[in-house]
Order: sequence, then structure tokens, then C-alpha cells
Amino acid sequence: MNKPIVPREIHRIYQGRTFTVQVETVTLPNGSELNAEIIRHPGSVVIVPVAADGQILLVRQYRHAIGRFAWELPAGSLKPSENAADAARRECQEEVGLVPTRLTPLGSFFPTPGYCDEEMNFFRADGLRSPTADETARPDDDEDIETRAFSLEALRQMIAAGEIIDLKTVAGLALLESRHP
Amino acid sequence: MNKPIVPREIHRIYQGRTFTVQVETVTLPNGSELNAEIIRHPGSVVIVPVAADGQILLVRQYRHAIGRFAWELPAGSLKPSENAADAARRECQEEVGLVPTRLTPLGSFFPTPGYCDEEMNFFRADGLRSPTADETARPDDDEDIETRAFSLEALRQMIAAGEIIDLKTVAGLALLESRHP
Repeated sequence: MNKPIVPREIHRIYQGRTFTVQVETVTLPNGSELNAEIIRHPGSVVIVPVAADGQILLVRQYRHAIGRFAWELPAGSLKPSENAADAARRECQEEVGLVPTRLTPLGSFFPTPGYCDEEMNFFRADGLRSPTADETARPDDDEDIETRAFSLEALRQMIAAGEIIDLKTVAGLALLESRHP
Repeated sequence: MNKPIVPREIHRIYQGRTFTVQVETVTLPNGSELNAEIIRHPGSVVIVPVAADGQILLVRQYRHAIGRFAWELPAGSLKPSENAADAARRECQEEVGLVPTRLTPLGSFFPTPGYCDEEMNFFRADGLRSPTADETARPDDDEDIETRAFSLEALRQMIAAGEIIDLKTVAGLALLESRHP
């Protein structure tokens, strides 16, 4: 059984800006029937921006969903028909103000496959440079972002101390460390 | 600004089995107003079960949201008023059929803080033993789960090869490796 199961019925509950909520009726491989509550999401990119001195750039912003500020790797959703590498370039410029010269894929992973189809596409970004005059990009209106460079050792300590609370940041740094260039 | 922002208005869109969908109107720290589409989730546990020989136990199941089978660390949502350690013990027994003698917290992280408040509580589980006759636990009806033990080296290769596609598994293994007992 390697083919996806086609739902017998789809009931769309909410079509939002970022995601769609649906109840999908499916018959599982074991024969049982399930009304699956599913978040449909366009997918996203997560960037690990590596500065010339080896430090990693993180961004800090207020996250209303969790009621806290969080240090995170820069990231964002794919726009319609945008490919992941283009989105990574755009988000890197929008969030840290620098354009990557080189992007290296670090893999694609699902953060919450139990109820959401968001796929996060991870990229290492090197050769960060200032944008030229005709390269315009600006954050969304609701984004108020601080950027800072951290050593890998400092980030390891922040994870152990509970000062980094974002899962994609933990995973992105592990993916970086597992693939030395 | 360290206190959470209280929404001016909450519009509940869907109350599901696993999560609630709400549009919450908030005024952000920078003064802009936002209708935030939020998934409210009870939180979850992720278990890194370490066998006596050092191998890690993973489970494989069909994930309808992504239309694929996936190898993952055992995990599950908190039940109402259940604490994380109790949930970890219960999920470990339900999913791999073994009861952990010792649980070590590996940290708590948000997989998708941009739109969802699910917090994943990671635990290393050691001293895995068979349940006694009065320790009953069984998987949910929609769970049809295969268990297998892997070496850390095999798991690293599966991540690099794209054979592990679940983000909490990547992060959980990294957390395990960063904290040798």
C-alpha cells in the first residue's frame, strides 16, 4: 500500500489566508473508517543562514499563537506556484535583509504529519550579500523582526537551557551539522 | 513586552477532536492589528525509546494528512488534565507495547509557532519492560502500527536519504545525542 488513500468525502470547514481546514472521510489500510481533521497548508521553507565567520543568523519575533517572542531560523510559507529555492531566497532577504549567493538543500520534513500536510523545505544559505538597488523585498506588515548572529556552540547551549523553543530551529541546526560542506 | 497579548476578539470556527480553529484579533507589539488564524492544540509528547543495546525504537503508520506511511518516534496528544510524563508512559505502551522504567525530559518545543500552539514535550525512555497483567493500554482504533529498532547510525543515514520525513524524529534524535546520560 504505497498510494495515498483518496477521501470518500471532503467537508471544507475554513479557508484561511495560510491554511485550509477540512474533515476528510477515509478508509484506512486496516479497513477502519476515519473522519480525519486535516489542516491543508501550501508548504514552507526554513533557511539556515551561515555568515562568513561560521555564525548562524536567527530572527526573533512575537508569535501570537504561543504568546511569546521566539528566536527562530528564518522561515515562511510558499506563495502560490513559487518553488522552494525561490521562496528561500525571498524569505532570507525579507527576514534578515541579505541575499544568499548559494543555497544547499538540507532535506524536507513534515512537522505535524498527524493532522497537517505542511512540508518544511530546509536550505543552508551561504555567501550572504546585501541586496542590489533593484532587489526589493520587505517583510509582511505583521512582521517586526530582530536579527542576530550566534555561534553553533551558543545555539546548542540555548537549546539545552530552554531559550530556543522552536522545533524547526533544533532540527535545522542538526541537519546543518550532519552535512558539513 | 514579555506578557502574552490578550485578543480583543475570538471567533471560534471549528471545535474538533484534536484541535480547535479560531480567528483571534490582536494588536501586535508594533501597533498593527492582526486577525490571527490559530490552531489551538492540547500539546503532545514525543518519546525516544532507547533499548538496552542502545538501539532506538521507531513506529511506522499511515498518515492520511500527507498520504504516506512514515517512520516516526512514538508520540501522541495529551489527554485532558494529563501531565506530560504520564502521557509519555501511556503512549510508549500503546505504540511500542513496552513500559519505560525511566523517563528523562529532553526539552519542550513548538513545531509550528506561526499558527499553532501545540507544544511537543520530548522524553528519553529507558529500562523498557513488558507491561504487567494489570497495565492495560491499547492503541486508538485508527492506529495500525509497526515497531522496529534502529541504530543511531542507521537513523542518520535514513534522514540523509530522505527515508525519514518526520521533523519531530529528526529533532528528537538530535536532542538525544546532545545529552548523553
